[in-house]
Amino acid sequence: MSPHAATHALFQKIKDATTDAPGVTRVAYGDGEQIAHDMVAAFATEYGAEKTFDAAGNQFLTLPGKDRSRRIVLGSHLDSVPHGGDYDGTAGVLLGLAVATSLADNGIVPPFDLTVACLRAEESCWFPHSYIGSKTALGRLEPGALDTVRRVDSGRTLGEHIAEAGFDPDAVAAGDTFLKPADVVAYIEAHIEQAPLLETEDIPVGIVTGIRGSSRFREIKCVGVYAHSGAMPRKLRHDAALASAHLVVAMDEVWDEFEAKGEDLTVTFGMVNTDPTQHSFSKVAGEVGLCLDMRSESRPTLEAATQRFRERAAVIAQRFGVTFEEGPKSGSEPAVMSPVLNEMAEGAAARLGIKTRRMPSGAGHDAATFAHAGIPSTMIFIRNQNGSHNPDEAMKLPDFDAAVNIVIDMMMRPATEWSAAGKT
Amino acid sequence: MSPHAATHALFQKIKDATTDAPGVTRVAYGDGEQIAHDMVAAFATEYGAEKTFDAAGNQFLTLPGKDRSRRIVLGSHLDSVPHGGDYDGTAGVLLGLAVATSLADNGIVPPFDLTVACLRAEESCWFPHSYIGSKTALGRLEPGALDTVRRVDSGRTLGEHIAEAGFDPDAVAAGDTFLKPADVVAYIEAHIEQAPLLETEDIPVGIVTGIRGSSRFREIKCVGVYAHSGAMPRKLRHDAALASAHLVVAMDEVWDEFEAKGEDLTVTFGMVNTDPTQHSFSKVAGEVGLCLDMRSESRPTLEAATQRFRERAAVIAQRFGVTFEEGPKSGSEPAVMSPVLNEMAEGAAARLGIKTRRMPSGAGHDAATFAHAGIPSTMIFIRNQNGSHNPDEAMKLPDFDAAVNIVIDMMMRPATEWSAAGKT
Repeated sequence: MSPHAATHALFQKIKDATTDAPGVTRVAYGDGEQIAHDMVAAFATEYGAEKTFDAAGNQFLTLPGKDRSRRIVLGSHLDSVPHGGDYDGTAGVLLGLAVATSLADNGIVPPFDLTVACLRAEESCWFPHSYIGSKTALGRLEPGALDTVRRVDSGRTLGEHIAEAGFDPDAVAAGDTFLKPADVVAYIEAHIEQAPLLETEDIPVGIVTGIRGSSRFREIKCVGVYAHSGAMPRKLRHDAALASAHLVVAMDEVWDEFEAKGEDLTVTFGMVNTDPTQHSFSKVAGEVGLCLDMRSESRPTLEAATQRFRERAAVIAQRFGVTFEEGPKSGSEPAVMSPVLNEMAEGAAARLGIKTRRMPSGAGHDAATFAHAGIPSTMIFIRNQNGSHNPDEAMKLPDFDAAVNIVIDMMMRPATEWSAAGKT
Repeated sequence: MSPHAATHALFQKIKDATTDAPGVTRVAYGDGEQIAHDMVAAFATEYGAEKTFDAAGNQFLTLPGKDRSRRIVLGSHLDSVPHGGDYDGTAGVLLGLAVATSLADNGIVPPFDLTVACLRAEESCWFPHSYIGSKTALGRLEPGALDTVRRVDSGRTLGEHIAEAGFDPDAVAAGDTFLKPADVVAYIEAHIEQAPLLETEDIPVGIVTGIRGSSRFREIKCVGVYAHSGAMPRKLRHDAALASAHLVVAMDEVWDEFEAKGEDLTVTFGMVNTDPTQHSFSKVAGEVGLCLDMRSESRPTLEAATQRFRERAAVIAQRFGVTFEEGPKSGSEPAVMSPVLNEMAEGAAARLGIKTRRMPSGAGHDAATFAHAGIPSTMIFIRNQNGSHNPDEAMKLPDFDAAVNIVIDMMMRPATEWSAAGKT
């Protein structure tokens, strides 16, 4: 029997209590999220954790350490997407619980306080705003967000929902937090991998080097001229579908260029559409909408890729007699994970005989907020067979245990080793 | 003043009587089409034409010729698309009137009867079925079409509409026609060009070598796998948007190949769409719908291009780990225009000092039905600045007159020259 069987059972309990077939639904600042917070708190109380909330309702469950002036934080979020799976978010919180209860059960006192953070509202399907939980936890929520960001189902503001849940939006606005960044030695977030790389390579655990930022053009418009598909001679066409196809292919070539230089980049056109009110099988397309999402661990790479996008679009526009209107640009900053923490994690894995690989996180996570706040942070990915944000998310419990055991091993390293992470 | 001023005035009268701002609307077997038929008949009566209808309501206005056992037919259709322009269809009928009235006014008797044909229901926006007027006129309507083809606005069948307009669907079904293909020496259809090639090249009149047929795949589906745009590694993607873009580019390369060999071809992807119910800016596209319309004057070229499409799709599918479901194939047969008639038209143009060029018709026209019935046929394109099927169709009256004068000159050629067209 696994030494972490109690935690395994908690996955099932949270699932049963928040089932919304198919899958589970835990709305941010909704009943399901609160149920999970309560179950996690009850579990932590059993191993003697001190329980507190901050003004935004983020919950902190602390096992006292040798040095009580600082803390190591293990955490993630407890909300889910609608009809989501059993592990996105919960795996990170429950890894914290497994580590803490294991230390407590064995009478091991960690070098610093060990705080399990249950963050709020990470899934931006509810409030269309990134990282609300970690931002409120660290006093980094954007001014005005409490009053302007509304939950998509209720239409009410984030501030109203925080108040309704029994917390204090005014204190949030004033920057009142439980976590003080200067006192956080490290933040570690475990998460199921959201792609099948570990599964494909038969590796249970990934050590995350960075969280990719993005450079996004969500409303690119290619404008040509509608014309008769049979009658319009080739040389007189301004074919938006052909020009757009060349742009998609060109950006895949740009990806080749960066890959050849060893630079981290993803390039995705997720939406490509002729205009349903105008297009026809017998018309040269006069307009195509496209959506480009580029991601990288490196800000200079994102900037260079954006530059290449504009260059290639200009050449294609010239060649095909169309215009590309790039529309608004949006995106997020990459976050670098702590090399010291990653070496500690790899050292632990080596001692335990657990195979790992370094890899970027392509999706955003609360760890990015911690890293941006100057806190040494990393993420540990757990092999997952079926992607995330769907009812079929898969994680084998032995892989979860491997990640737990790595962090337990890390917790037994001396304070000086942890403190080194803050000095790089 | 133009010798064809009376016909010019008729364009304006028909426009005024069927205005539906912006543009004109003449529904097939509707009031507007009938108004145009009546106005054309009144005009023809003035130059002494014999007037008759066939069972489907196609109208024939005949100026007697020297040999009354056979006829030359000049014609086109009088229905329009909704909010269409002033010249699509009407230019062909009114050219016939201008030719006939000019001969009559000058006491010239043509070698054969000269029949102006006012055909019904050419615009397939009303009845989704091609060439209803010319097919009924020649006894070539597909069995069952009278009962199965319904007008999109009324929901009633073609047969019901023919009866309501005062004609005889049973006689249509029995193949009762006024025109007897064996007696038709030639069919000539003037039409505005539906692209700006003549305008671009500063040539008033085009001589049509053939009407392109088509090979169409209206429901191609590229099926990949949806995945997280940031997290899914490149080598594990099955990106339907990227594969589709490669297919569009590949088919443009196929067009290059055929163009290099001097083969007539057009290639158009008029509709390209990720699935609005599934796509997202942050998802690798798992499905794309595409619509491919290939046209050529040559059936072997269409077959070879279709073969290349399948070859290229298979290679791209393999490379990107997607499947292309080609869906149903549809299309139409190319129609070859009469080389003898085209030489006669070019001879006439040369005598008159009118610049012409040979060109294919990319769009379908009733002339295709006449050619498929074995009748020597051709089309004369008139320069047009603004495309067709829109309120802004443009045709300069001197260009119309140039086309009229070419046909008048042809009508003065001896019967033997016309008869030669039937012997090739």
